[in-house]
Amino acid sequence: MYGLIGKMKCTPGQRDFLISILLEGVSGMPGCLSYVVAKDPTDPDAVWITEAWESQQAHKDSLSLASVQSAIAKARPIIAGFGERFETQPVGGHGHVTVNNAA
Amino acid sequence: MYGLIGKMKCTPGQRDFLISILLEGVSGMPGCLSYVVAKDPTDPDAVWITEAWESQQAHKDSLSLASVQSAIAKARPIIAGFGERFETQPVGGHGHVTVNNAA
Repeated sequence: MYGLIGKMKCTPGQRDFLISILLEGVSGMPGCLSYVVAKDPTDPDAVWITEAWESQQAHKDSLSLASVQSAIAKARPIIAGFGERFETQPVGGHGHVTVNNAA
Repeated sequence: MYGLIGKMKCTPGQRDFLISILLEGVSGMPGCLSYVVAKDPTDPDAVWITEAWESQQAHKDSLSLASVQSAIAKARPIIAGFGERFETQPVGGHGHVTVNNAA
């Protein structure tokens, strides 16, 4: 498995919009085991994204999906930068997080 | 929802043992939506734990569970310290990670 933990910063006040783009764009990605979007409680313009994939290749391939390309295009104008980023090797656990209204 | 992203360090060479304790101890915790254990590819003695809970209270309550208390007692001698720790507010996503053999 391949994992990513990362922080993304948006332009001021655009976090809910960024979250909605992220959640819309990431459903049904082949090889994606988990994708959780979270607000940073210490920064109103930051989100954390934690991902688990079957393989690093599956993650790489996802970047070419039309839905992901579309999400990237929509999000680009409101992405202000990136914070911490950690690659991981998930080995197990459990969990199911259902999609909620991000607004 | 309440989330935690954190790094735990073990004594040298004990990572697989620590992972097995973690995975054994965390099944069936009430209010736990996701719990993923991952190896840090840059540090052979570090694991990343990412958690999503229904509430901060659910996470707090879990620390009193017999299974979690037992895991803490077993892990304590091989926990060398903690690294980064971030609290988050998960807002959505998807995912299902099944428990694998951690060894």
